[in-house]
Amino acid sequence: MINDHLAELKKLLKQEDLDAALISSLPNIIHLTGFSHFTDIEREAYLVITQKKHYIFTDARYAHAVKTNLKNFELLEISLHQPFIKLLEKIIAEENITQMGIEEDNITVAEHKKIETVIKKSKHFDLKQIRIIKHDEEITKIKNACEIGDKAFSYIFKQIKLEMTEKEIAFLLETFIKKQGAQTSFDTIVAFGPNAAVPHHKTGDKKLKKNDLILLDFGVKYENYCSDMTRTVFFGKANVEQKKVYEIVLAAQKLAIEQFSNLAIKQSKTVNAADIDKVARSYIISQGFPSIPHSLGHGIGLQVHEVPSLSPNSKSVLSEGMVFSIEPGIYLPDNLGVRIEDLFAIQNNKLIQLTKSPSSLIEL
Amino acid sequence: MINDHLAELKKLLKQEDLDAALISSLPNIIHLTGFSHFTDIEREAYLVITQKKHYIFTDARYAHAVKTNLKNFELLEISLHQPFIKLLEKIIAEENITQMGIEEDNITVAEHKKIETVIKKSKHFDLKQIRIIKHDEEITKIKNACEIGDKAFSYIFKQIKLEMTEKEIAFLLETFIKKQGAQTSFDTIVAFGPNAAVPHHKTGDKKLKKNDLILLDFGVKYENYCSDMTRTVFFGKANVEQKKVYEIVLAAQKLAIEQFSNLAIKQSKTVNAADIDKVARSYIISQGFPSIPHSLGHGIGLQVHEVPSLSPNSKSVLSEGMVFSIEPGIYLPDNLGVRIEDLFAIQNNKLIQLTKSPSSLIEL
Repeated sequence: MINDHLAELKKLLKQEDLDAALISSLPNIIHLTGFSHFTDIEREAYLVITQKKHYIFTDARYAHAVKTNLKNFELLEISLHQPFIKLLEKIIAEENITQMGIEEDNITVAEHKKIETVIKKSKHFDLKQIRIIKHDEEITKIKNACEIGDKAFSYIFKQIKLEMTEKEIAFLLETFIKKQGAQTSFDTIVAFGPNAAVPHHKTGDKKLKKNDLILLDFGVKYENYCSDMTRTVFFGKANVEQKKVYEIVLAAQKLAIEQFSNLAIKQSKTVNAADIDKVARSYIISQGFPSIPHSLGHGIGLQVHEVPSLSPNSKSVLSEGMVFSIEPGIYLPDNLGVRIEDLFAIQNNKLIQLTKSPSSLIEL
Repeated sequence: MINDHLAELKKLLKQEDLDAALISSLPNIIHLTGFSHFTDIEREAYLVITQKKHYIFTDARYAHAVKTNLKNFELLEISLHQPFIKLLEKIIAEENITQMGIEEDNITVAEHKKIETVIKKSKHFDLKQIRIIKHDEEITKIKNACEIGDKAFSYIFKQIKLEMTEKEIAFLLETFIKKQGAQTSFDTIVAFGPNAAVPHHKTGDKKLKKNDLILLDFGVKYENYCSDMTRTVFFGKANVEQKKVYEIVLAAQKLAIEQFSNLAIKQSKTVNAADIDKVARSYIISQGFPSIPHSLGHGIGLQVHEVPSLSPNSKSVLSEGMVFSIEPGIYLPDNLGVRIEDLFAIQNNKLIQLTKSPSSLIEL
């Protein structure tokens, strides 16, 4: 898999007429090396890739692990006497690099000022368009993360009890995920009642009451790949308004899925992401509810949020190998919020649902 | 506390002859607002601070929470029709901003290209020099995080059993921390035997054997503030070499602490960070062991790694209100690693130890 990723990068280098790419973002380093020891506490590594060579720059803390695990990379050890920029200068000279790609959406202004002193010509280089299309092995990894998520959901909803706090439920859910040998891909959102009206509610100390609605938005990270899922369940009986909102959100998701199939057949291969967003969004508005205050969906992979974006302004075309969420929601401030989120992959021109938890209305 | 932080920023604006500062990094946003709902999944908020006004830019997902919690900030809601850069342009015009500070070590090249289109004059603006000096309330918060860390350490070392894996111990430790209502400040490092020779070992599936050495490096995040601590304990009997290495590392830490007191008395107020690093480092080398392959210590606060750096090249002067680690280590590849790390605050010109777990050699 890693060799495919490196080959794709080199193809892009050629297309962009670049001698080398400087890779700085952690997800892209993982994408190209499979090595996930680095943390995002600070900048801990860079890669430089040319058509013939793969260099990795890191410090003594990681040198041993890099040497053991990355046989196809040459290590340049950053130290007080050999700061990154000196090592980069050396490689630029040795490899005769005159045009270098940099990740302009990751390199900071301060880093760029230093890089400019050792190479004049650099331009934006973007792996997003490579990473947007997942290989089968990558889809399998996302599917595995989703499976753990499904297990976690079926576990958690048996644990929920009166008077539990949002934090307690999040803790139980996250503990279950970790017991599976996985991690969470982001901080779990648990929102009771009116708290669910805040799309990114911060899980707190509110206690669960009879007939509260519970929104659960959580993700799993397993072998570097992420899942993401949201369910809204009722602790007791859903009232008439809650039921209505729930059914509209669920219908909006189904319409979006159907729209994909319709367009995929008609257009034989590709579907505009904006058109999928539109059908769900318009339906919710047509039922007298406010427009979704976020995108209908987002790509996912090594990161929880990737391209494509399924949003009104999106230019993305949904195609074979893409993996993304479809997550309509209705939020009524100080009253309630309902969101239903599932992940889908496009395989053989069809939408394959990766999260399998039931989405029909659940009353606990 | 927040008002003090804003006042300090405004003083710095004046000194730097700036009309406003654009704040983009998550820790600085938390520092200036106390609001910690935003995630680092993507850029979710910015602040613009002038002498008279505080603006916060975020999207609909956070609008409600911001309005409820941040009464002293004016909200500008980012949307598809009102992207950040348009809103920024409006504020720059309204507030007549001609010179703006930006965080050059956080703003990306891509973001900067957009910002440049709405304001010509910008320069680096750095809150590091403000955040390096902690208020008493901040030291108390770090102390609280350290206390939870100490509890976690005394808990975990009763749980450790033969054949447990590194991951299992990390899981138990992290679960304990979360049960206290806290979070981990970074991924816990658990390293058995030769794995401890890798300063940033990735916790894995290795099983604990009799007479293995165990390195535990973990941190707590509580009310946004971090702790960080390392202990190396022996599961069984430490052999002669292990004991020797342990005692040298411990002595190196003690020498660094004493050096601070000596210099603090002599110089009456300030101490060079590099001099503290030197005494521990030289001692380890003088005993025939390799130099520490990392800094002797680092500042800590809202982030696990902050200024000052206690390292050979550091220009930092250690002064009142600073909080940092002192963490000498000896690493012998494929054999063993010992690191002992504690946190200290400078209060009343004295080093106050914030982590209280015993550091004498422990044989379980």
